[in-house]
This record gives sequence, C-alpha cells and structure tokens, in this order.
Amino acid sequence: MQRAFLDTALTMPADAPLPHPFDPLSKEEIETAISVVKKAHGDDLLFNVVSLQEPRKAEMTAWLENPTSAARPVRIADAVVIASDGKVYDGLVDLQKGSIVSWEVLDGLQPIITMEELQLVEHIVRKDPKVIEQCKISGIAEEDMHKVYCDPWTIGYDERYGSKVRLQQALMYYRPDVDDCQYQYPLDFCPIFDSVKKEIISIDIPKVRRPLSKAPAVNYHPAGVEKQGGYRQDIKPINITQPEGVSFKMTGRQIEWQNWKFHIGFNYREGIVLNNITFNDKGTERPIFYRLSLVEMVVPYGNPEHPHQRKHAFDLGEYGAGYMTNSLSLGCDCKGAIYYMDAEFPTRAGGVRTIKNAICIHEEDSGILFKHSDFRDDSVIVTRARKLIIQQIFTAANYEYAVQWIFHQDGTIQPEIKLTGILNTYSMNPDEDTNGWGTQVYPGVNAHNHQHLFCLRIDANVDGPNNTIFTTDAAQAEAPVGSAENFYGNGFYAKRTKLATVGQAKTEYDGATMRSWDICNTNKLHPYSGKPSSYKLVSREIPGLMPKPGSLVWKRAGFARHAVYVTKYQDDQLWPAGRHVPQTSGDQDLGILEWAANDDESIDNTNVVLWHTFGVVHFPAPEDFPVMPVEPITLLLRPRNFFSNNPVMDVPPSYCITPSQVAANAQGVAPALDKNSAYVMPEKSCCNGANGANGVNGTH
Amino acid sequence: MQRAFLDTALTMPADAPLPHPFDPLSKEEIETAISVVKKAHGDDLLFNVVSLQEPRKAEMTAWLENPTSAARPVRIADAVVIASDGKVYDGLVDLQKGSIVSWEVLDGLQPIITMEELQLVEHIVRKDPKVIEQCKISGIAEEDMHKVYCDPWTIGYDERYGSKVRLQQALMYYRPDVDDCQYQYPLDFCPIFDSVKKEIISIDIPKVRRPLSKAPAVNYHPAGVEKQGGYRQDIKPINITQPEGVSFKMTGRQIEWQNWKFHIGFNYREGIVLNNITFNDKGTERPIFYRLSLVEMVVPYGNPEHPHQRKHAFDLGEYGAGYMTNSLSLGCDCKGAIYYMDAEFPTRAGGVRTIKNAICIHEEDSGILFKHSDFRDDSVIVTRARKLIIQQIFTAANYEYAVQWIFHQDGTIQPEIKLTGILNTYSMNPDEDTNGWGTQVYPGVNAHNHQHLFCLRIDANVDGPNNTIFTTDAAQAEAPVGSAENFYGNGFYAKRTKLATVGQAKTEYDGATMRSWDICNTNKLHPYSGKPSSYKLVSREIPGLMPKPGSLVWKRAGFARHAVYVTKYQDDQLWPAGRHVPQTSGDQDLGILEWAANDDESIDNTNVVLWHTFGVVHFPAPEDFPVMPVEPITLLLRPRNFFSNNPVMDVPPSYCITPSQVAANAQGVAPALDKNSAYVMPEKSCCNGANGANGVNGTH
Repeated sequence: MQRAFLDTALTMPADAPLPHPFDPLSKEEIETAISVVKKAHGDDLLFNVVSLQEPRKAEMTAWLENPTSAARPVRIADAVVIASDGKVYDGLVDLQKGSIVSWEVLDGLQPIITMEELQLVEHIVRKDPKVIEQCKISGIAEEDMHKVYCDPWTIGYDERYGSKVRLQQALMYYRPDVDDCQYQYPLDFCPIFDSVKKEIISIDIPKVRRPLSKAPAVNYHPAGVEKQGGYRQDIKPINITQPEGVSFKMTGRQIEWQNWKFHIGFNYREGIVLNNITFNDKGTERPIFYRLSLVEMVVPYGNPEHPHQRKHAFDLGEYGAGYMTNSLSLGCDCKGAIYYMDAEFPTRAGGVRTIKNAICIHEEDSGILFKHSDFRDDSVIVTRARKLIIQQIFTAANYEYAVQWIFHQDGTIQPEIKLTGILNTYSMNPDEDTNGWGTQVYPGVNAHNHQHLFCLRIDANVDGPNNTIFTTDAAQAEAPVGSAENFYGNGFYAKRTKLATVGQAKTEYDGATMRSWDICNTNKLHPYSGKPSSYKLVSREIPGLMPKPGSLVWKRAGFARHAVYVTKYQDDQLWPAGRHVPQTSGDQDLGILEWAANDDESIDNTNVVLWHTFGVVHFPAPEDFPVMPVEPITLLLRPRNFFSNNPVMDVPPSYCITPSQVAANAQGVAPALDKNSAYVMPEKSCCNGANGANGVNGTH
Repeated sequence: MQRAFLDTALTMPADAPLPHPFDPLSKEEIETAISVVKKAHGDDLLFNVVSLQEPRKAEMTAWLENPTSAARPVRIADAVVIASDGKVYDGLVDLQKGSIVSWEVLDGLQPIITMEELQLVEHIVRKDPKVIEQCKISGIAEEDMHKVYCDPWTIGYDERYGSKVRLQQALMYYRPDVDDCQYQYPLDFCPIFDSVKKEIISIDIPKVRRPLSKAPAVNYHPAGVEKQGGYRQDIKPINITQPEGVSFKMTGRQIEWQNWKFHIGFNYREGIVLNNITFNDKGTERPIFYRLSLVEMVVPYGNPEHPHQRKHAFDLGEYGAGYMTNSLSLGCDCKGAIYYMDAEFPTRAGGVRTIKNAICIHEEDSGILFKHSDFRDDSVIVTRARKLIIQQIFTAANYEYAVQWIFHQDGTIQPEIKLTGILNTYSMNPDEDTNGWGTQVYPGVNAHNHQHLFCLRIDANVDGPNNTIFTTDAAQAEAPVGSAENFYGNGFYAKRTKLATVGQAKTEYDGATMRSWDICNTNKLHPYSGKPSSYKLVSREIPGLMPKPGSLVWKRAGFARHAVYVTKYQDDQLWPAGRHVPQTSGDQDLGILEWAANDDESIDNTNVVLWHTFGVVHFPAPEDFPVMPVEPITLLLRPRNFFSNNPVMDVPPSYCITPSQVAANAQGVAPALDKNSAYVMPEKSCCNGANGANGVNGTH
C-alpha cells in the first residue's frame, strides 16, 4: 500500500503496525498464503484468488469494542486455486499459524475469471484455423489476423456445455489500425474457448452472415480528432489547489474526515469495501454501517437472438471489480490533493501483482451547504459544503465504471457510479432491421439494448446492530374531500410499513409514492420527533429486471428480482449471485435466493443486511459512440431522526450578517465583529477564503 | 445591468446597442412605461408589474432568421397597476410610440403580491389590538410586541372571503432575540390582513391553544454556534481559480459557450428565462429550445386542520421568483470567475429598484467527461468535463431555492434546484400528537409535511418548430420464455408511444419502466439509427400531487395533476396556474386547464410546448432544523439521435496514450508526440493543466 499524500507527506512509522483486521492481505500475506498452499498441494497450481477472509463479525465486534483486551481476529486467507487437471479448490489458510484450515474440491463450479485468463484468449483465437476461416468469410485476409481482436467473456451459461468445462466466449472485432476504437468493426461469429485445454472448441455462426463493415473509422484519440478538425481551443483552465493539504487524516487504512470515521478495504471481487462507518456526534462515536459495498452487478442485453442471451455479465462475480480496477497512476482522474492506495493481488502462477493507485481519495467543494436570507432586512448566512470521495474505476472490457463513495458533512452517504467507456457492439448489414433490440449507432454497428443493475449491500448498524427496515410511502389522507377530517382534501402523511419478515421485505420501488426504505433503530427514539433513529435509502433509478421471470438471467441474477431484500446477518453471506458465479445455470438457488428462502424468518429488531438493486436501462444512441460521455447514477443514505438537529451548523460560513449587524450598520454603528459589518471567519478556519461584505470578489 | 466580469474586464461599447427583443425591460424602459401610464391614468397608482411582453413568436422567429431585413419586434411593456380604490388594471404600453396599447380592468382577480406589500404587514400586525390580545394569550407581554414577527402569505383561497378583497394571512412567530431563527417560536393564531385597507380584518384562532414554547433557542448564526462549542477548525481551504478568465463570451445577454448559444432573460415571475437555445454542431447552428423556464410552483402542506389548508404557496404566480430573488452581492455564493447580471423592477410607487447580481454565471469542473482503458495494454484516454451554470437564488419567506440551469458540453441541459433555508413551522403543545401530519423537529415546533412541485415549461424547437412528443418505456418482449422469438426470455425494447393529441399527452410517470418523454423531430431521422432527432426528458422525482382530486389545491394547481401536459404553442400561454394566481378559487379552469381543455386537439408534428411537473415530498426531520442542509432535485434534457456521434470527442483530454504509443514505449522507442510517450495537450488548450505519463501529480 502506498502511504503518502502526493503533495503532503504523511509520516508513517518505519515498523508498520500489525494490519488492521479489516485490511486487505498485504503482499507478504499473499506470498505466505501461496507458499503454504504450494507446500501442501504442489507447485502446479493456478492461483485464482488469495484474499482476506473477513473476520467473523462476533469476534470483530468484540475486538472493535475493546481492542486492547479482546482477542485480535486471526488473519485468514481465502484461496481459490485451479489444478493442472482443471479441478478447482476452495481453501482457507491461517496466516499466523502458516497452516491450511480447510481445503475442499468444488464440483461443477467455476471460480472467477482472472485478467490473465482473459488476456490469453485473443492470442489463441488469432491462430485458430476455424477462426481464420470465419475471418476470411467476413472479408479479412489471413495476413491481417493480427488486426483481429476479441473481448473474452465468461460464457455466462450455455446449456450445451454446462458448468463442468471452464469456458469463455470471444466477442470478435476487427481493428484496421491498432489505435482504432475496438468496437466499430464487430464480427458476426463467436468462438468458444476452453480455458483448461486452451483451445477453441466451437464457433457460433449466425444464420444471416454480416461481412465486415466498409464504413470509415471514427476515433476519439488525438489523430482521429485531428482528422475531424482538431481539438477545440476555447476552454480556459480551472485550477483547483489545496495549499494547506487535505482535511482528512489517515491512520493506516482508517480515515477520519468531518466527524466521519471508517476503514477502507479492497478486494478482488467488490473493489472498495467500507467498514465500521461511524459519525462523531458531539463527542459520541455513533455506529451507522458495519459494512458497505457493491456486491454484484448484472448487465443483461436485450437481444433474444442466439447467442446474445449469453451477454449478461456479472461483472463483480465473474470478473471482479477489484481485479479489473484501473491503475490511476496512468492518468490522474481527479483534481486537487489526492491520496492514493494500491491494491495487491496474486498472479495465477503464484506471484503478486500490484495495481498502483487503485483507490483515490480526495475532497471537492460541493456548492452551498445551507443558506438563508431574511426578506425583512437581507440579513443572510451562506455556508459552503465540502465532500469526500473515495473512488475506484474499473474497466469491464468495453465499459468503465467509476465507483464513488461520497461522504457529505451532513451525515449523508452518496454512492455514485459514473458509466463511461464504449458500448458493446455487434455487426449489422446495411438496411438490416434491428427489430428494436438495438440501435445502429454507426454504419454497420448495432449496439444492443441493455441494463446495468448494481447490487448494494448495506450491513446496517444504525446506533447498534439491532435494526428494523420500514418502507415509507407518501400517502393521501384516507378521509374524503369534504369530510370533517379532511375537508379541503390536502391531508397527506408518510405511510410507514414494517418489513417484519424476510418475505415482507422482498419489495419493489414505487415512483408515484416516492418510496424509500428506512433503516431504523426502533430501540432509540428521537427526543423531539419520537421517531426511531434512522438512515433512509433514497434511490430513484430502479427499473426492475427486464428479462422475464423464468428466463436465464432471472434465474441466475436472483438479487435483481426485487428492489430490496433483507436478510438476517450471517458471516460469509456477501455475494448475492453466489460465491462462484461463472457458468451457474440458475437452476439451483444461490446467494440471496438461498439466504432469503425462508419468507417467515423474522428480521424485526435484529442485525439486518439490506440488499438493494438499482440501475439504468440503456437504449443506445449514436451520441454514445465511439466513446460514451459519462452517465451518472446516484443514490443517498440520509440520516433522519438520527441527529438532534442540523449537524452542520458549525461549518464556518463563507458569509454571514445577522439582523442586529444589518441594523447597526444602517445606523452607522460599526458592529464589533468586522469592519465590513459582516461576520467573516478567521482566514485559517474559513472553508473557502471568506470575502468581505461587498462579497462579489470574482475569484476566491 | 452590470456588464463586467469581476476579475476579467469585458469592454462594452459606451453607446449600448438597441436591446435584444428578448432582453428584460431596462431601467429607462420601465420608467418610460410608468410615465406613459401615469400620464393617461394619474399618479395615484401602485405599480404591481412592469415587465417585458415577450415578442410574438411569429414576428420574433422571422427576425431571428433575418435580423437585418425582417422587422424588429416592437418593445412592449406589460403593466399591472392597482388604483387607490383597489381596482386592478392590466395594460400594455408600446415603448417606441409611448402609448397605451390596451387597458383593461380586472374583475375579481388579484395580481401578484410584491415584496413591498409583504413588508408592510408585520408593522401593522404588531400594532393591532386584536393581535396584541392574542399575543398576550400566548404569553407575550405587550412591551415585547417588537419581538413578534410574521411571514405574510397570500391567503391562497379562503371561501369565507373570496377573491374580491386583496388579502394576506400572517403566519406568526416570536423572536426573543432579533438574531434568533425566525421559525422556532411559532404562534398558534393567524391574522388576516386586508392589503387595500391596510388592516387586520380577522384572526383565525384554533380550538386548542398552544402557548409560546419555553424551549431554549437553537441558532445557526455565529453567536449561536459559539454557544454550542464554536466552529469546527479542520477544513482546509480549496481554492478554485481561473487565471485566464472564463471560457464563455457574452454579447449583451446572449451567451456562447462550448457550442451552446442562448439568450438569458429574467422577469419578475419566472426569474431566469432562456431563449433561443442552439448548439453549433460542426458549423451548423441547430435550434433545440425556443424558450425554457420554470413557470410555476406549488408547495401544498399536508395538515388538513383549518387554516393550514391555506398553506399551498404558488411561489412563482403569487410572489414571483424574480421579485424574491437574492442579490448575490450580499455574499457571493459561487467559486471561480463569476459573471453577474442585475435585475430591474418597478417599485409600487413608480420608481425602479435594482437587484444587484440577481443572476450569476460561472463554470465548474465536472469530473470525468469520458474515459476508456484497453485491458490489453492499459492504453487510456481520460477527458475532464466542464459545465456552465446560470443561477439565481430566491427566498420565499422561510425557504430558499437555488435554481441552476446547468449546461454540459455533450448537449445535455440539466435544470437543478437546491432547496435550503428553513422549514415552515407551527406551534405544538408538549406531548401533542402531530397525527402524522407533521414532525416535532424541536420542542414545541411542528413542521408540517409538504411537497415542492415545480413546473418546467419547454417550448420545443428540436431541429425546428415542428416536434412530436413520445413516451418511452422499457418493455419486456411480448413472446414468452421458451418461444422461438424469445427462447431465453431476455428480449426487451424501448416501447415508444406517440402522444398525438392533447388528451393522450396527459401522462404520469412510471418508475418501473423508467419512463422518459422524448421531444422528437419526426421530419429528421438520424442517418445511422433511423430514429428521429430528439431531446429526452429524464426526470425521476415525480411524486404526483398529494392533495386529493377535487381538493382545493388540486383545483387551483391544475398543472400538477399530471407529470406532463403538452399543448400547441400560443403566444402568452406561459403560466399554467393562470396569469393572476392569488385568491383564485380553482372553480374556473385557468392556465393549462384552459389551454389543454380540448383533448382531441392534435399535437402531432407541430410547435408543441411540454409542461412538466416534478418535485419532492418532504416529511421533515430534526436534521432539517433550525436551517436545512441543501436537498437537490435535478433532471436532464439529453440529446438522443440528435448528433451524428459523440459530440465531445474534440474536448482536449487530460491524459491519453494510444496502443501504438504503449507498444513503442515498451520497445524503448520514444514516440513522436511526447517524451513521456503520452499524448499531452499543449498547455494553453488543455482543460486542467495536463500532467505527464507518471500522472500522479497530486495537485494540478
């Protein structure tokens, strides 16, 4: 892990302390785990996963409450390895003892596809005679095979092959120039690759053939832009500087900022994991969430023609948001003072690879935090907001996902995902009808309809582990217009419904009632409102799963059948499409379907986990091609009846003049605070370089 | 109008040119209109409105197309005046001829309430013996009457008084200290004020009395914060500077920025009005919207007990977003280089008042515009986005609304409203039940449930005036799972429904299908997609009107009965709750109800206006008190099938390295473009101060 502010040196002790139990495995720990496994099971192994097994919650909670006297949770590595015969093993390694705790062979399960496996396919595809033949049919000469590329995807599930053979499907493209956009010359056939044999075992060939498009290339890189007239010249710089450095403090991977405190973890699967999120409320550290992360995704494509149904990537479960994460050292994507953290993963051969700058942390000005003017005298207070952003960006073949965990000063947490990158495309003939399943975004390029559905896992801890989930719907008063109780017909209220059981908690969104889900601590009522201390999940983009009930995707992506599931906490229930996702048929209930199988189970006033699926439906348009401007999707976790009152009144205002100051000023009496008769914060503590009463200081 | 960048001087000719036909009336024009009216109708008049009557569209369009040869639209002032006998007149004044074009007495209609009328009430209330008596009952001594305040609201509609007498209701508060929060000691009675007689004609007194609360004050001003421990000291400054100034160009009130061009108007009613919005698409100026503005609002409160039903402010129609707008000279609310515009309005007596810095215009960095990495070689392009913000902030008694018109480089327009300020409050007794109609946010303070519903008017001009509106819903393929057409059940498509008539266009939101409304030019199909050139309205916060059908609010706020109405353009059809909103009973169909009365009228392929009502439901919580952290609400107008492809590829990247550069670099061959083997924009044209290949330049 890189432990330095890049413009603000942070001193770390030479002898680093013991890892925090939530810390990802260090390079040394990964190496230890690998050597323990090799010692026991030989060298001829491919290391698929070596990752922290997170501490058991009971142990961890005891330790968090009493780190000096409670037992420190043991460091355990969770390992998945593939033997040379293709057999897959799940193992646990005790890193202190240097011993294997458990070792289990998997039957008919395929673990996550690693980047190395993905990289391999293209090279084999290019040399395969069957592929070369299909390329010829498409109009590509054999000497141009080096211009043939593929995006290798897990096969999803193909009933012709089942789950026992480890397979990838190769989505094929032609790139006349190495710098061309990868996705503008799609090929119409789809080779199937056997990961163990390392060969193409079959090719799916459509009935209607679509030869290579003859359209000219359209590119977004500098040479391409030059050809189209060059870069625009009319954007003047905006400089963002933090001369005194950042306002947050790192202690290992634990961050403190504006009353927030939490641990920033990272794993191959989910990428960023936030643990033990607390808020210092006037001296009391109040727990809010035990763990927060994205735990799964599915991107179902809407073209029902074979083999496009196989395009429904579970990007986290099948490829890993950690494994695919960008090194931000290759182009800094933020402004201001940035703090970076690296990520370390095993290589298949048993080494360790480092993704430099896998996570970036920075602050941004966030506009007005609050403002009020009194119309009587123009007395006014205006205070600017600051936000903290913990970000990773991962590239899932064509798409990029910038995942931001945004923390606000007022206690709000805002997970935001910015979608960019390039559309997945398929070839089409001139004048071919897309039948509504896609859009011709460029001549010969059919971008299929798809959804991006994300599953957010909220391990709730609002003022303690025993929480209860309610829905809140805006509801009209029942009494009719003209009745004594509702004479003018304007009565309305927040209709709260307790989700007392796992079955009741399987809920959908209702846009008309602005439904929210409230994570409540019913044991702690607000002294003023009498309502339970709570965090409200405000999420407005919840399209529901487009593939039909009973369909392949519906079976495999059980988490996406409902906007919300709630389960009772159990260790290791993390990933709602199952632990090993590639090539699951969906015939067996895995993950959330297994954990939420008992509809009668009580989830009232206990340690609950809320699983929320949200996302977008993307009907592509030419504007999205050849590279897509960012489309953000966002949601909020907001404190309601949690704080005694507005928790940000103590953020220094950028400008404030009170009625008494206005009056004194009008009478020619200069008030004590400032010569401009405005309250201006002392320069050091003011958040944005305060300006005087004349206020209109253009640049500040 | 102030015509200067504050840190970047903009030279304006000493002899200003003729006003643009969309320009608001200048000070001189207002003065001319007033003197013409006075000459004809005497001096004893109160000037309620003197504002531009916008040019007739046919004339204006002809002039815009050919400003040199077509007739320049005449400047007409729209005047509303109140005579000393309370009679109200609507008039039009030709400013060139200096003559009155029309003059009409209104019967039973009340024009907008001005700030001066609002200011008056409090002074009269304090001296009224009946009010003094009620204050005594509440526990306030007569010598403390100067600590009694009121927020005067139009009465809405009270059937006991009707529409003929001009009335205000005084929402009463006690402020022990002049600097205290206005809303923490509400009083339980409500005086009715006659605006013409200038006296209290009645007081609404509740059956259950609620004496003044004894709770200690909680304040957000510096002294209040000091009492609670003082300001936090841990926020380091973030400085935002634009050393070369802004990237936009002003010509009068016309702005050009990043291919956008439009005129920025402002009136007493709507505040900011954007006209003739075009986008320069590779040399062709393509029209998108003829006019865009917020045209109405309603804030219905949900407590059905009398007289709270009267709390349903039409902030635009009853008070005016222009009239209530903040002078941003009293505290600059933005960062960077800001351009300001003033607003000028008549005073009641016939003078002119200026709101300095009523509008601010600035740019902000907007994060990633697009990014893509190739997983094969880590070649990458990342480009940062810029946005332009045209902002006003208005204070409607307790609430502030920051209205932002955000323009993005990719052709997206994002209207955003930030709600802040203070909750409207009512008193409650200790242990009183709110009955669910409100929340006790502080001891003795009941904040009632309410909605903020905004009506956005879109005068469409997508590639010309003849447009057609469609809804788009995400829809599952009809064919069942297992059928030949949808074997795997994954088929889905964009179900488009033409809104061919006014009746069909009365539509609601559907969150489950992610419904959008598409403004299409069916005469212009995209060369690749074959779909009509369009702008898509993406709006996700559409709660629907909580007051019941047939209720007072439902009758008065007809625009809020549907998420969308569409009408055929007619001059002067601007404000959907009617031209004169105060004290309308709702028994007569005004505004949109009148214009959209004929359900059979065709709106297919003609000049259409789309009226969209969106907003929030606010169930208050203690976190919102005594001042509310900003709650933003946002929507998007996105180009779809409008541009031939991604229109922002020519925005200079902050970092780019292509596959050929990566390869050359790996072979030790320094590519031509840059010593770091990365494409780095020349410093002048780069948007964020480009950084080299090592990229992790903390501050830049």
